[in-house]
Amino acid sequence: MAIEPLTVETEEKKKDGEKKTVLTIPRHNVPPVWAADKQFNLVGKPQPRVEGVEKVTGQAQYTTDVRRTGQLYGAVLRSPHPHAKVISIDTSKAEALNGVHAIISRNDAFDIKWYQEKLPLFDEKVRFVGDEVAAVAAESEEIAEDALRLIAVEYEVLPFVTDMTEALAEDAPAIHADGNTVEEESNERGDFAAGWNSADHQLTRTYTTQAAIHNPLEPHATTAHWQGDELLIYESTQGIFTVRSEIAEAVGLPQNQVHVIKQHMGGGFGAKQIAWKQTVFAALLSKKTGRPVQVALDREGETLAGGNRNPTRQTVRLGINQDGTLTAIGVEVLVTAGAYSTAGEASNISGLFEHLYKCENVKTTTMRVYTNAGPAVAFRAPGYAEACFALECAMDELAHELGIDPLELREINYTKRDQKQDKPWSAPDGLRHCYERIDEAFGWRSRKKPAVHGSKRRGFGLAAHEWQAGSGQPPAYAWVKINTDGSVDVVTGTQDIGTGSRTILAQLAAETLGIGMNNVRVQLGDTAMGPHAPTSSGSYTTPTMAPAVRAAAIDARDQLLEAAAMLIETEPENLVIKDGKIYEAGDEASGVKLSEVTGRLAPHMIQGHGAYHALPSDTSIRTFSAQSAEVEVDTLTGEVTVLRVVSAPDCGRILNPLAAESQVIGGVTQGLGFALTEARILDHRIGIVLNADLEEYKVPTVADMPTITHAEVNVPDLNANTTGTKGLGELPLIPTAPAIANAIYDAIGVRLTDLPITRQRIVEALEEKNG
Amino acid sequence: MAIEPLTVETEEKKKDGEKKTVLTIPRHNVPPVWAADKQFNLVGKPQPRVEGVEKVTGQAQYTTDVRRTGQLYGAVLRSPHPHAKVISIDTSKAEALNGVHAIISRNDAFDIKWYQEKLPLFDEKVRFVGDEVAAVAAESEEIAEDALRLIAVEYEVLPFVTDMTEALAEDAPAIHADGNTVEEESNERGDFAAGWNSADHQLTRTYTTQAAIHNPLEPHATTAHWQGDELLIYESTQGIFTVRSEIAEAVGLPQNQVHVIKQHMGGGFGAKQIAWKQTVFAALLSKKTGRPVQVALDREGETLAGGNRNPTRQTVRLGINQDGTLTAIGVEVLVTAGAYSTAGEASNISGLFEHLYKCENVKTTTMRVYTNAGPAVAFRAPGYAEACFALECAMDELAHELGIDPLELREINYTKRDQKQDKPWSAPDGLRHCYERIDEAFGWRSRKKPAVHGSKRRGFGLAAHEWQAGSGQPPAYAWVKINTDGSVDVVTGTQDIGTGSRTILAQLAAETLGIGMNNVRVQLGDTAMGPHAPTSSGSYTTPTMAPAVRAAAIDARDQLLEAAAMLIETEPENLVIKDGKIYEAGDEASGVKLSEVTGRLAPHMIQGHGAYHALPSDTSIRTFSAQSAEVEVDTLTGEVTVLRVVSAPDCGRILNPLAAESQVIGGVTQGLGFALTEARILDHRIGIVLNADLEEYKVPTVADMPTITHAEVNVPDLNANTTGTKGLGELPLIPTAPAIANAIYDAIGVRLTDLPITRQRIVEALEEKNG
Repeated sequence: MAIEPLTVETEEKKKDGEKKTVLTIPRHNVPPVWAADKQFNLVGKPQPRVEGVEKVTGQAQYTTDVRRTGQLYGAVLRSPHPHAKVISIDTSKAEALNGVHAIISRNDAFDIKWYQEKLPLFDEKVRFVGDEVAAVAAESEEIAEDALRLIAVEYEVLPFVTDMTEALAEDAPAIHADGNTVEEESNERGDFAAGWNSADHQLTRTYTTQAAIHNPLEPHATTAHWQGDELLIYESTQGIFTVRSEIAEAVGLPQNQVHVIKQHMGGGFGAKQIAWKQTVFAALLSKKTGRPVQVALDREGETLAGGNRNPTRQTVRLGINQDGTLTAIGVEVLVTAGAYSTAGEASNISGLFEHLYKCENVKTTTMRVYTNAGPAVAFRAPGYAEACFALECAMDELAHELGIDPLELREINYTKRDQKQDKPWSAPDGLRHCYERIDEAFGWRSRKKPAVHGSKRRGFGLAAHEWQAGSGQPPAYAWVKINTDGSVDVVTGTQDIGTGSRTILAQLAAETLGIGMNNVRVQLGDTAMGPHAPTSSGSYTTPTMAPAVRAAAIDARDQLLEAAAMLIETEPENLVIKDGKIYEAGDEASGVKLSEVTGRLAPHMIQGHGAYHALPSDTSIRTFSAQSAEVEVDTLTGEVTVLRVVSAPDCGRILNPLAAESQVIGGVTQGLGFALTEARILDHRIGIVLNADLEEYKVPTVADMPTITHAEVNVPDLNANTTGTKGLGELPLIPTAPAIANAIYDAIGVRLTDLPITRQRIVEALEEKNG
Repeated sequence: MAIEPLTVETEEKKKDGEKKTVLTIPRHNVPPVWAADKQFNLVGKPQPRVEGVEKVTGQAQYTTDVRRTGQLYGAVLRSPHPHAKVISIDTSKAEALNGVHAIISRNDAFDIKWYQEKLPLFDEKVRFVGDEVAAVAAESEEIAEDALRLIAVEYEVLPFVTDMTEALAEDAPAIHADGNTVEEESNERGDFAAGWNSADHQLTRTYTTQAAIHNPLEPHATTAHWQGDELLIYESTQGIFTVRSEIAEAVGLPQNQVHVIKQHMGGGFGAKQIAWKQTVFAALLSKKTGRPVQVALDREGETLAGGNRNPTRQTVRLGINQDGTLTAIGVEVLVTAGAYSTAGEASNISGLFEHLYKCENVKTTTMRVYTNAGPAVAFRAPGYAEACFALECAMDELAHELGIDPLELREINYTKRDQKQDKPWSAPDGLRHCYERIDEAFGWRSRKKPAVHGSKRRGFGLAAHEWQAGSGQPPAYAWVKINTDGSVDVVTGTQDIGTGSRTILAQLAAETLGIGMNNVRVQLGDTAMGPHAPTSSGSYTTPTMAPAVRAAAIDARDQLLEAAAMLIETEPENLVIKDGKIYEAGDEASGVKLSEVTGRLAPHMIQGHGAYHALPSDTSIRTFSAQSAEVEVDTLTGEVTVLRVVSAPDCGRILNPLAAESQVIGGVTQGLGFALTEARILDHRIGIVLNADLEEYKVPTVADMPTITHAEVNVPDLNANTTGTKGLGELPLIPTAPAIANAIYDAIGVRLTDLPITRQRIVEALEEKNG
């Protein structure tokens, strides 16, 4: 394995409107890329979760399971008003309650800036129902809740606006000092107007998508313990290093005095990429009391203040010729950040319009506004799930209008290039493979509706997309320790957010070292000792960490073989490791056990180091997926039964088909909820969320689930990284809503352009159509 | 920094009488050795402990401070007999006690082998008063203690022997199946008999040293939590990786499923190098109960079963010519391991006789026997403290006999070579520097007794030695993370046993990176994520870890300078880092802050890797010290007041004079206790220890302490490793007892050859002398 020369790469990055030079220093061993036809022992085979037993037997510790001596419990007082000025806060009665240890509010002069607006943690205004006004630490959650009721807050109620269109009006209440615009962006490639005007057909259609709530089963939670000059934080987070840097900055500690730990997580889905206010509340309450403090959001807090998928209104304009070639793609997006811009809300809605189809003339405009609602935050494929609904429903409408099969229409407009970056896709046929697999596994081209049965109608729908999760988000590092008994620890700074990262990384190390899965433990989720790893988001974790772990395992293996070669009296390059045994190729009987070699090396313990830095690429590393759905719609009740969904994502090489299938099932499930049932219901007249609970907010249950098939593409992307694998997590969710919407149209002949497609909306649309 | 080619070194090592090939693979970057006259910002300056505030404010968590949810507390039932067969154990009444959760004893068929004899954890025989018979886990320590009294044990009492000379007798009770001999070893260099016979003068003298108890303020303690297939252990230990491997083997888990943590420690002094029975008791009780279990020894358990310095009887024979040149050195050593050979008792008594003085004819024989007493274990400079008392008292006697000044006599017999390994010392003038510093700082050659005052007599004494703690005990590894805010984490797998390792390693990293001490945190004491480091013993920690941390910091610094060079637009080699600022040499104004560079690199976090493997050396890397004492002896009462001690240890470059002085003060204090007051008093008629507590076992108090001066030698040993530093911890204890004994002789004219030199022994010796 050669040491690559040190090179320095510069990159221009826009932040706060300012150009900034970003330096990165790739400095690592680069192992050869796995060949496309490489044969594996463990990789590519279904491997159950290494932490599965621990989880199903209830032994896995989550953040709210942490119990430290003297631990206190927090509760958060939230604004009952969508917009108000905080005149005064009287905490004296609450402080007098037996068992209450500390209260923080505006009365405390904490000079802590929060969210991207750099407002105080407790501002002079509250901006949504649920906005944080105070936090209490007490002996129990119950006492803390009781204390909240004893805090007297005097508000000056202000006019408010929760509808994003109304927020744009000139006389709308100003939510922030600079007004209600968060950002406005416009991009054009080619000449949209020319393309539009030259088109044989023009389609203009407006779509809306709703605020969906992430609803991880484990809510946001922190257990903080400020001891001396060090702050220990157990956090349910997708990014331990992000929480570390954000909290360090907020509370004024260096990063190395903040120690963030996360071992297991009950879901994040993008809502746990940042440090939220409960994190800093727990830290400050711990500092004030000198005791560990646990603050977990209840389901109401989670719904109101724990993030949501940003509602959108998208006006799509597609120009198309009679032969099906697109001449113009346009979209005007209105989207709301809610009351605050959190730094976790990045929602790339225009990207899909710019990338998916071959088209010379593309124009996108995006307007992001504030409203008096809970802050939006990235939700599994942020922007793309919303955009895919609009673009892919519009494409479906064109297909029907032109009498071209929807799959055919997509093939007509197929592109092998990233038209925005003007370079080829790393996998130019990636999406084509997805289409092929859909056709095979779903039987798209041979689909046939059954005979009509009473009020029920069958339909088929299709949607596709590309997505960014290609090369990962390096740099990342890994260390592989081969212990003296031959057991192996893989040390990284990543986190397993419930997606199976431990399992995949154990597979890679075990494969490389020629040992069994159960010989490897993956140590992660700890900022103190772990090397840097990025936040687990954007489906980045596998393509980021897998190459780093592989490189570290190779470095360890090379050292192991050097030692084994001495014992066997041969050259290292003649040796093979398999099933924990090392032997000369072709002479298995001559071998020694791996543990014999490491035992002889004792007390030396082999340490392998690996890194993964993305190097400049002449391809655009992207992922793709296509999805098709068969639905049955009851035209009397509006009930939609999704019968089957086939998802064909191209994530390069599939490292673990079982983990991949879990992602597909989970993604389609969330997509189905987004399509049909899930929506935060905010009464715009009073600014209050009416369903901040899991009874009225309708997450799909097992009874709602169709048969879900993962139609594996599994073509290694040799341009992506040395393992040929790319991200998967977000892909299966993105096209579900448009596939279902298109199937509903196919079933009942009406276009539903507003999500979720509730029974009421179907019935109303059918009534309108039928007069 | 060049990458050294991979080389493989083989070494013959004797273990269990068998030759074994030990493989080591040095594979690391070797930075240049620090020049002898290198100027430093932080190294060599007194730096207070980085964890000092945490400790003195009571925030530092020790093993017995660990509190986990549902934690149980253990107690250990110990044998009241020095030797007995366990006929039966009835735990039924104890089990019925409210609050008792589990009991383990011989009744449980644990197939666990323990100590080097590979006997069962609970054997059919007990072999000393205090031997472990059962262990209980209960809701509280009090309940556990109560439960012990309800366990009925039927013993068949056996004849016993606690005196090591008696243990050699043919009819002595056999303590182990193979008899009472642990090992017998004899070595001769040259021709002892010829040298002895040719000598002008011959001295034969027998010395005895006592069983001293380590008495760390924090006793041995374990908190174990067996969860699923993983065992978490908080342990008060000098060697987290040793505890991991020993416990893993004992309980049948792979090493990577045993996670050992140690953050702070209240002393070990050699008694905590291994996993003791309480460690495995806690693990097994946790497995049985499913709850965390804490087992800490009380002071009685600590004294009886937590290890002791092996008592010795040494018959020294020195042949010397009239001019002071030694012609023969001989010693016959009888030493007892106590009842068990623990693997931690290595006590090199003969080594000093073989190494210290230039002599062609050296013969040593060592006989180690079992007795029915608590197991011996390494105690700060094991063997050498005992040997130094014998050899250096004998040399003093010869000096007086020949009328040669004791310092002069030592210079006459000075050697620059390791005569056993037949190669030069790494620091040929090391011990000579010690003598020079003693002469300067104590005023040895100008010493003068004051006028006699009543019954009190003054005297001066001197002693010297060499010691093994030279190159450390590699391999060792370190990782240096420069965080995006410029703060730094040093990650190692070592432990700070209270000696200041955190501080020294922080100094090295800060020095190399040109930042302040408070910008660095040292992460250690955790086997899961930390890279391999050896047990902290043999004064090895600094010379082992310092080169590894330095190498890692250099690797990190190189990456940092690459990035900074881009910003400053120069070449890295032109750059200087100082006080957290990076600039072109000579142009400080042009500089950028380190944190600006790392901030621009974000999310990249710099990871430096470093290792230290000892390479074959053509020198023998050893340390040396000399020590002198002034005492006042009251001839009426026998009371000895040590007035001042000057210690001049050669540990190469002194990295932190404050930490070094602490070691000197601590070492002299323990040496003074060994000389005058400390002894386990075992009544050989009944086999019982009479002073298993800190009231009757006399550790020196502040009232007993002399003025202690660290006469720094501080000459970097450029052969030792790239930092020029060697170990220090054990040096200041080794010569204290003979220096005091020689001073007592100088004061009152009688030779005391048995330790401790109590008032009673002085009075008796004076009575005998005066008739």
